Amino acid sequence: MIVRPRLHWLRMLFVWRGSVLGRILPQLALTTGLAAAVTAVDGVVFGFRINLTVAPFTLLGIALAIFLGFRNSVSYDRWWEARKLWGAVLNDARSLARQVQSLADTDEATRRRFALGVIAFVHALKHQLRETPAETDLARLLPPEWLPRVAAARYKPAVILVMLGGLLRGLRFEEPVRILAMDGHLGRLNESLGGCERIASTPIPFAYSVILHRTAYLYSFLLPFGLVGTVGAPTPLIVAFVSYTFFALEALAEEIQDPFGMEHNDLALDAMSVMIETTVLEMLGETRLPDPVAADHFLLR
Amino acid sequence: MIVRPRLHWLRMLFVWRGSVLGRILPQLALTTGLAAAVTAVDGVVFGFRINLTVAPFTLLGIALAIFLGFRNSVSYDRWWEARKLWGAVLNDARSLARQVQSLADTDEATRRRFALGVIAFVHALKHQLRETPAETDLARLLPPEWLPRVAAARYKPAVILVMLGGLLRGLRFEEPVRILAMDGHLGRLNESLGGCERIASTPIPFAYSVILHRTAYLYSFLLPFGLVGTVGAPTPLIVAFVSYTFFALEALAEEIQDPFGMEHNDLALDAMSVMIETTVLEMLGETRLPDPVAADHFLLR
Amino acid sequence: MIVRPRLHWLRMLFVWRGSVLGRILPQLALTTGLAAAVTAVDGVVFGFRINLTVAPFTLLGIALAIFLGFRNSVSYDRWWEARKLWGAVLNDARSLARQVQSLADTDEATRRRFALGVIAFVHALKHQLRETPAETDLARLLPPEWLPRVAAARYKPAVILVMLGGLLRGLRFEEPVRILAMDGHLGRLNESLGGCERIASTPIPFAYSVILHRTAYLYSFLLPFGLVGTVGAPTPLIVAFVSYTFFALEALAEEIQDPFGMEHNDLALDAMSVMIETTVLEMLGETRLPDPVAADHFLLR
Amino acid sequence: MIVRPRLHWLRMLFVWRGSVLGRILPQLALTTGLAAAVTAVDGVVFGFRINLTVAPFTLLGIALAIFLGFRNSVSYDRWWEARKLWGAVLNDARSLARQVQSLADTDEATRRRFALGVIAFVHALKHQLRETPAETDLARLLPPEWLPRVAAARYKPAVILVMLGGLLRGLRFEEPVRILAMDGHLGRLNESLGGCERIASTPIPFAYSVILHRTAYLYSFLLPFGLVGTVGAPTPLIVAFVSYTFFALEALAEEIQDPFGMEHNDLALDAMSVMIETTVLEMLGETRLPDPVAADHFLLR
Amino acid sequence: MIVRPRLHWLRMLFVWRGSVLGRILPQLALTTGLAAAVTAVDGVVFGFRINLTVAPFTLLGIALAIFLGFRNSVSYDRWWEARKLWGAVLNDARSLARQVQSLADTDEATRRRFALGVIAFVHALKHQLRETPAETDLARLLPPEWLPRVAAARYKPAVILVMLGGLLRGLRFEEPVRILAMDGHLGRLNESLGGCERIASTPIPFAYSVILHRTAYLYSFLLPFGLVGTVGAPTPLIVAFVSYTFFALEALAEEIQDPFGMEHNDLALDAMSVMIETTVLEMLGETRLPDPVAADHFLLR
Repeated sequence: MIVRPRLHWLRMLFVWRGSVLGRILPQLALTTGLAAAVTAVDGVVFGFRINLTVAPFTLLGIALAIFLGFRNSVSYDRWWEARKLWGAVLNDARSLARQVQSLADTDEATRRRFALGVIAFVHALKHQLRETPAETDLARLLPPEWLPRVAAARYKPAVILVMLGGLLRGLRFEEPVRILAMDGHLGRLNESLGGCERIASTPIPFAYSVILHRTAYLYSFLLPFGLVGTVGAPTPLIVAFVSYTFFALEALAEEIQDPFGMEHNDLALDAMSVMIETTVLEMLGETRLPDPVAADHFLLR
Repeated sequence: MIVRPRLHWLRMLFVWRGSVLGRILPQLALTTGLAAAVTAVDGVVFGFRINLTVAPFTLLGIALAIFLGFRNSVSYDRWWEARKLWGAVLNDARSLARQVQSLADTDEATRRRFALGVIAFVHALKHQLRETPAETDLARLLPPEWLPRVAAARYKPAVILVMLGGLLRGLRFEEPVRILAMDGHLGRLNESLGGCERIASTPIPFAYSVILHRTAYLYSFLLPFGLVGTVGAPTPLIVAFVSYTFFALEALAEEIQDPFGMEHNDLALDAMSVMIETTVLEMLGETRLPDPVAADHFLLR
Repeated sequence: MIVRPRLHWLRMLFVWRGSVLGRILPQLALTTGLAAAVTAVDGVVFGFRINLTVAPFTLLGIALAIFLGFRNSVSYDRWWEARKLWGAVLNDARSLARQVQSLADTDEATRRRFALGVIAFVHALKHQLRETPAETDLARLLPPEWLPRVAAARYKPAVILVMLGGLLRGLRFEEPVRILAMDGHLGRLNESLGGCERIASTPIPFAYSVILHRTAYLYSFLLPFGLVGTVGAPTPLIVAFVSYTFFALEALAEEIQDPFGMEHNDLALDAMSVMIETTVLEMLGETRLPDPVAADHFLLR
Repeated sequence: MIVRPRLHWLRMLFVWRGSVLGRILPQLALTTGLAAAVTAVDGVVFGFRINLTVAPFTLLGIALAIFLGFRNSVSYDRWWEARKLWGAVLNDARSLARQVQSLADTDEATRRRFALGVIAFVHALKHQLRETPAETDLARLLPPEWLPRVAAARYKPAVILVMLGGLLRGLRFEEPVRILAMDGHLGRLNESLGGCERIASTPIPFAYSVILHRTAYLYSFLLPFGLVGTVGAPTPLIVAFVSYTFFALEALAEEIQDPFGMEHNDLALDAMSVMIETTVLEMLGETRLPDPVAADHFLLR
Repeated sequence: MIVRPRLHWLRMLFVWRGSVLGRILPQLALTTGLAAAVTAVDGVVFGFRINLTVAPFTLLGIALAIFLGFRNSVSYDRWWEARKLWGAVLNDARSLARQVQSLADTDEATRRRFALGVIAFVHALKHQLRETPAETDLARLLPPEWLPRVAAARYKPAVILVMLGGLLRGLRFEEPVRILAMDGHLGRLNESLGGCERIASTPIPFAYSVILHRTAYLYSFLLPFGLVGTVGAPTPLIVAFVSYTFFALEALAEEIQDPFGMEHNDLALDAMSVMIETTVLEMLGETRLPDPVAADHFLLR
């Protein structure tokens, strides 16, 4: 995720990092080159002058914009829902940290064990979504006797929730029904887990990507034949401009539809995991807190 | 559901599987052929030159794009809601697997019987939605004494929930109110069931399909008469391009509006059922887990 | 509600039932006739040639399409929300049927009386929304001593909920707090009732209907004066095509914004009521179940 | 709120009441007059012929339509959310009326006092939102000893909820935990109160109104200079038509964004308050019910 | 937040405050100046006449409008969600004020301490979001023994919730389960906190801002070359008009996407905090209430 202070409008025109320009440069060069060639020969191919006129491109361009708009809201909704799910993880982790102190009658050590288990859940979730090894974090946070079962599991965060449920079962409560309030938050951590898995395992229907991709690229390839007749020499400029807008939005929609990756506009799971760890520890009264993850050239992973 | 790694932008232009191109090929050939014929006779029909000009098509094409955009979000929302409902089934199955261990005081066998009953619910739901026979899965998972009643039922998953409710009634709890937490998750499995039935039994208002279908096809049939006067020889190319975009989006909207089918872009109920079975068993501590369903040429059913 | 298997794309062009074509035929004939007249006189009215050119119609047509798109999503959202509310009624009826067996300690007769009361609520809701007489269904389902009070009530379903609450009060529970779980589902039936009343009693702001209606019709009346100058003889064809799209979508939006009526695209409340009755009885263990409501020429009421 | 049976499509073209035409007549007359003047001088101002051509207006008109569409959905969403909040008030009032009979062990007088308190909340909410005096309704419904504190309060409905909470505290329950179910509904009345206050106190960001207003009006003022060159004499007609659509939608969006007012398309809070009073009394078993509020020339306040 | 009575349509055209005009004046001057220069030389640059024609701008302008529309709804949704979260804070603060009187058995002093703690949470949340010092408000509202821990905390509102949970633990309840109702509202305050942090810490994907910014500005820079050929002298006027609409909407989207700031269209956190303080105190029976925050030239911070 790119996090930077608001830029002056002029600098914003020339910013590079996070602008997906890097990813679409080859395609952009190709369409612009093609447009230059078409302009050079004035639309004449094999002795045949092709003038598609601008009208079909007005029509199709707007249709394309509408469909790209649809595609972008779908991608954005996935990205934002993923962010909300991680927000819910934060909320439930904090609520459990509060309740283990205010609802349960338990000693300092059990309380800490429980809270660290919740933090382990968060890191395990991150590692599952990014397909990175969870071992180091698990070893750091979980009681040694839990490790073998959790480490061997296919769905580690779900098994951690079972272990936390077992720990909960052992807590003493002034009134046993209070366990339900804490179990409810375990249940919601479970929902956030399922929600993240849903987004990670269910891509946007493949045909949407294909249809829009094809339409956008064919459009840009044919556009010079529509413009050269009336616009003339500046045709490549216009083609580059139009292609940039369409290609960039398509590439961005492609990028953020899988929000758990490591690309520039993906979510900063590292930073969020550490933040959750920090606030949970702080709520337990600890004062030695981890440092927040720093952005690297405005980029937060 | 098509699941494949992100393709290179060039390969994406020529991919076939999951692109709905197969389904619209005849129509596409027809409109393109028609356009070729109109171009060949230069728009002259019965000695009468028909030139509709491009203007009405700009206007109508954009209106059509807007309505198709609306149609596509409606279809997509159904598809995504269906996916969310299956995500909720996963969540509640996992929560019940946790709670039957941490909230109830029960022996290993009852616990397993309960969890298998939940898994049977999942498979029964899949079979009801796809109208496939549930018998094999039920026999594999349910206690023999439940089988006759469940197998005879018109709404099998609902009856399984009644049986699970009866099983719950027999469990012992440290405090009887805890049963409510588990009953709540049965209630939510019930809601997911009802939600899936709602989507499966309620098509999009038929008139939407009809009106948009008609507009899209009439549009493509008339388009050559609008283009031939100015675009000339490349008219069939443009018509093919425009028709492809409109027909493909309409066909895809038609396909995903019933997300429980077996078409390329429908949900992978098989894979999800097995995944839920796996994670529930794993949470019970089992180590012999079913293999995940493998994609067949990137296609997951 | 029209329920039919997916049609071949060709047959779909000529389908009549459920296509709202019947409702807009007079208007369509009028605009087309007007266009024919304008074309016949070549746009000359009182010796004055009116040529509005096509440009204002491009502009306004697209604006109109955008507003119609907005109007259609509003209408569709009402229709779909109404469907969801009936889905919630199904869910809560089923949950109560499960809970009256698994949470309450009660005899067969009371259980049945409770379940039939829930079914009576469903039918009473349907009759209130359609303003049809509820007496027959109430007499069939409710205990005779409830009938006078319910039948005399202005808001029958709400009073049935009071009676069900009273019945609930009389049930014995292993732990009295369990009544809250069942009371919660009564509360949600109550919410579905209120939601349906909200949709039924609150039309879309009248001014929206008026403004869009006016714009659509004026547009179609003036369109021939814009086209005749360039399109010539085929003007009536284009006018008919454009009018069809706009009028049909407006008529459909008008139709589904009141989803509880008896028109072709309205919800099938009859079929749903019977379905809920069936599944509730089946969950109670009954085997003599009502037949599902059959579609009449693909039309389900 | 305008409530009237569906009109014939022809009558709908000439309806006046509720069509916001009254509010925009002066502006409409001005733009049309301006267009007439421009047409009369054929676009020549100070001996200089201004021909903006139609192209910029196509572009800007569509952009304007898109932004107006956005503005309208925002306004409509506020209006509909307000309606939903009042629907929730109805639901919770009914639930409390059911529960005070089925969950609490209390005498007829206390039950009635509680229900009238809930009705007083509803009327107080209406008066707060419309800034009308609540005294008469409060005196009619509340116990005399509550009156001084409620009448003096800045936020009357919130204080009524405190009083109802105190009353609840005094009720006897078979099991004290049942109070939570009723307290939960008080909490949701509280949420509806907060939701209404949110809509009433938070206008749409002022800049949206300003930007769209300016664009719409400038557009209509300049439009004649764009049309007169090609359309000629009928220019004022087209300008009037275009202005009507844009001005009317803007005025309507302005009207319904504050849904609690007394304008034609605002919500019928009077009718809803009386309806809630009626159904609550009916659920208590009362038979002398208030008459429903009648529409005055199809207008319900 | 700008709060002012509805303006006359004519005054609305010339309002300055809150119209973002101030922020975009330099850019607007630049594009208009550029357009004037291009018009002066009639599009001839280095002896080369550049005529891009209007067609590419129609196409791109509409695409730009669609994407800006998308960007605006995203920004508006963030703004409105932030407002809803503050509305939820109000609701939960009021519910806790009611419950501490009706559910808990406690003395006046503890009740007041609890309510002031809730108010302190609200102010601490505001200060965290605006990055202003919270010390004065905390010292005014919290018990002195809480101050050191809260003041030292990185996430102050979360720690206040822990303290409130501890206070809750010490309250006496007729039935201990009632604590869950109050703990539930603490949990929801916690969710509102997390929701605000989510919006404050997660900007819209940076690439969206960049792509749209670039497209809007390039568009305005090139537009004169498209218009000068047909529109002639009034080109700068049209360019100014078009740029105003696009720049203003982009600037506003930029402004409200971070709704917790101090800009003109941001949320009035000061006024809301004081309002929550007032109503909570009033619900406790206090009569000396703070004055509402007054708007300064229609501007509420």
